[in-house]
Formats: sequence, C-alpha cells, structure tokens
Amino acid sequence: MIRVYGDMLSGNCYKIKLLLEFLGLAHEWVHVDILKQETHTEEFKRMNPNTRVPVVDLGNGEFLWESNAILNYFADGTDFLPAERLARARVLQWQFFEQYSHEPYIATARYINKYLGLPKEREAEYHGKQAGGHKALALMNAHLEKRRFFVGENPTIADISLYAYTHVAEEGGFDLSGYPNIQRWFRDFAAIPGYLTMQG
Amino acid sequence: MIRVYGDMLSGNCYKIKLLLEFLGLAHEWVHVDILKQETHTEEFKRMNPNTRVPVVDLGNGEFLWESNAILNYFADGTDFLPAERLARARVLQWQFFEQYSHEPYIATARYINKYLGLPKEREAEYHGKQAGGHKALALMNAHLEKRRFFVGENPTIADISLYAYTHVAEEGGFDLSGYPNIQRWFRDFAAIPGYLTMQG
Repeated sequence: MIRVYGDMLSGNCYKIKLLLEFLGLAHEWVHVDILKQETHTEEFKRMNPNTRVPVVDLGNGEFLWESNAILNYFADGTDFLPAERLARARVLQWQFFEQYSHEPYIATARYINKYLGLPKEREAEYHGKQAGGHKALALMNAHLEKRRFFVGENPTIADISLYAYTHVAEEGGFDLSGYPNIQRWFRDFAAIPGYLTMQG
Repeated sequence: MIRVYGDMLSGNCYKIKLLLEFLGLAHEWVHVDILKQETHTEEFKRMNPNTRVPVVDLGNGEFLWESNAILNYFADGTDFLPAERLARARVLQWQFFEQYSHEPYIATARYINKYLGLPKEREAEYHGKQAGGHKALALMNAHLEKRRFFVGENPTIADISLYAYTHVAEEGGFDLSGYPNIQRWFRDFAAIPGYLTMQG
C-alpha cells in the first residue's frame, strides 16, 4: 500500500492527492502538521532529511520526496505523462518553472497571509512577492491563450503542479481577474474525472 | 545543429555544457550576457518568456528552457539518466531539491558576492542565505557518506545539477572544509571523461 505523508494545507501535498485520485490509486494518507513543525522530528528526518512534505513510502523500504518527482513516478506510463521525449521535457520545464519562478512567490505569499496572519515583521516580504507572482501568472495566461492545457490538449502532471497553488493564489493577495485564460483552464482542470478540492 | 543560448557565469548554463561534452554532442554556444540584461530583450523573450538562460534551440522551431528539463531531454536514453522508474524519480528528486533548497541559497549568495561585489543594500540578504545553504550542503554530505554518486554508483544528471553550483559554493562564502564527502565527490565528478571547468 502506498502511504503518503502530507498536509493538505500545502499545495505540494494536494498535487499528490489529485494525481492519485485521477489515477484511482489506493493509498493511505498520514497527516503531518506543518504548522506544528512535525516535519522536523528525528523520525520524520529519516524519511526526508530535507524536513518537508510530501513524502511517499513506496512500501518496499523506499521513501521518495519532492512533490514533482513523486508526480513523475506515479504518472509514468499513464496519460498524465507523455512517453515522447520532448513532451516529457516540456512537462518538466513547467514543473521546474513552478518550483523556481511561481511557488516561491505565490505559495509563500499565501502562507504568510493565510497561515501566519500577515505578521508585521513579514509584511515587506509579503509585498515583495507580488511582482514575481504576477510575472509567473502573466506568462501562464499568455501560454494558455492557444492551448487547452500546458503540454498538448490533454492534462498532464504539469497542469497538476501549476494548478495546486495557482487556484488559491487569491489567498496570497493575487487578483486573478486579469487572467481569463487561467480561469478557463481552472474550469477545464476541475472537470477532470476524480477531481477534488483542496479541502478534500 | 543544437544551439544553446547561455552565459558560463551561470551554473545553470554550465550544467548543459557539461552534459553535452560528456555525451560528445556537437552544438553551437551563443553567449547571452546576463549582467547586461540580454535575457530581457523582446527577441530573447520569444525564446523564453521567463527571461532566463539557458535556452536550447532544438533546430526544428522548438525552444526548451529550464536547465534541469534540458538535461533530462538530452540525457534520455543515455547512461546519465537511468531507464528504471524509481531511479528516474530519484534523479528528479535531487534536481528539484537543487532548484528549491540549494540554488536559491548557494547560487544567489555567489551572485551577490562575486558578480555584484556584495553591495551594502544586499548584505543582509547575503548573510541570510548562509543557513539554508549549509542545510543543503550537510544533507548532501550525509547522503554521499555511503554512495559514490547521488543516484547509484555511476554519474547521472542529478550529479551534474548539484555539481554546478556546489563546486563554486566558496565564492558565495560557504566554507566546504567540513564536508569531506562532497570533496571526494568533486574529485570523482571531475574524473568523468569530457569534464571541463566552468571557465571552459
């Protein structure tokens, strides 16, 4: 049995939940409370020394971490990850974009605002995230102008990676009303059989 | 002919150069000066709207960006990227670790120090990078305690991704003397046929 250690407050964990539901893969979900620093225990560090969720216990003594690596593992051989070399690389291009140019702005602003309550000492950091977040959103909106999903006409794990934090970007102070293609993509994404919200 | 747009000041570009040399793939290198903001021209943005190097022109009208996606593209089917599903996911685990938990600390500190000359207004940011960088280095050093390379006994693109900025971490103020396994790995990495330094 696949066992996932995660916290659904985290978009990175929500990614894994979405893919496992889309694929209909049975799994056990073990809640790890990130606000209580439960990823910093010695027991947790034996699974992931980088003290982050999600972590997947593959059931054979192997633990895999990094949300996008986990998505690639489970999607391999399914419709959510094309077999063709350039298409696979494009999926990765968008996943690395997500981790470097999107998540550090949009997810971090959301975390500071929604979970930490925008404390005074992090206000400057919070406002400093806006420009980078809007750069990422504008780029995504332009890409989606002529494409239904990020890589081709069908959803891939690139869409899962980008959907996780984009669809809750307003919780980080990002007004999405100027990005009509992203909103259209949200509707197409939510129509994938097996879809569930971040609240479960 | 493969055409790579890059700047060898950037470890992300050096990664691509290393792999192409290891694989003996003929290519043309087009210098893009990042200190002169040459990634922000309209012409460049048509190749990569995210205004970053490296970008690869695959010669068929397709441009691929994000260094680690490019590495996966060229390494597919070679010894630098295992075919087995879990090993591939492990390579990605380390590459996503590099982009999220390593590069933003180690590469950014180096950039501020070496290329910007540690200006007073970025001193606090520079010093703030040290803890995160050392967390990444300690994790890598522990992983390499019993392993010759990051994924198995032979070099993969995970090693290329991590080598690029780690081997010049001292230029970002990171003392590597406390990480003997990383230093041993540097020697093994530099012995790969085709190896070249960042200076070319």
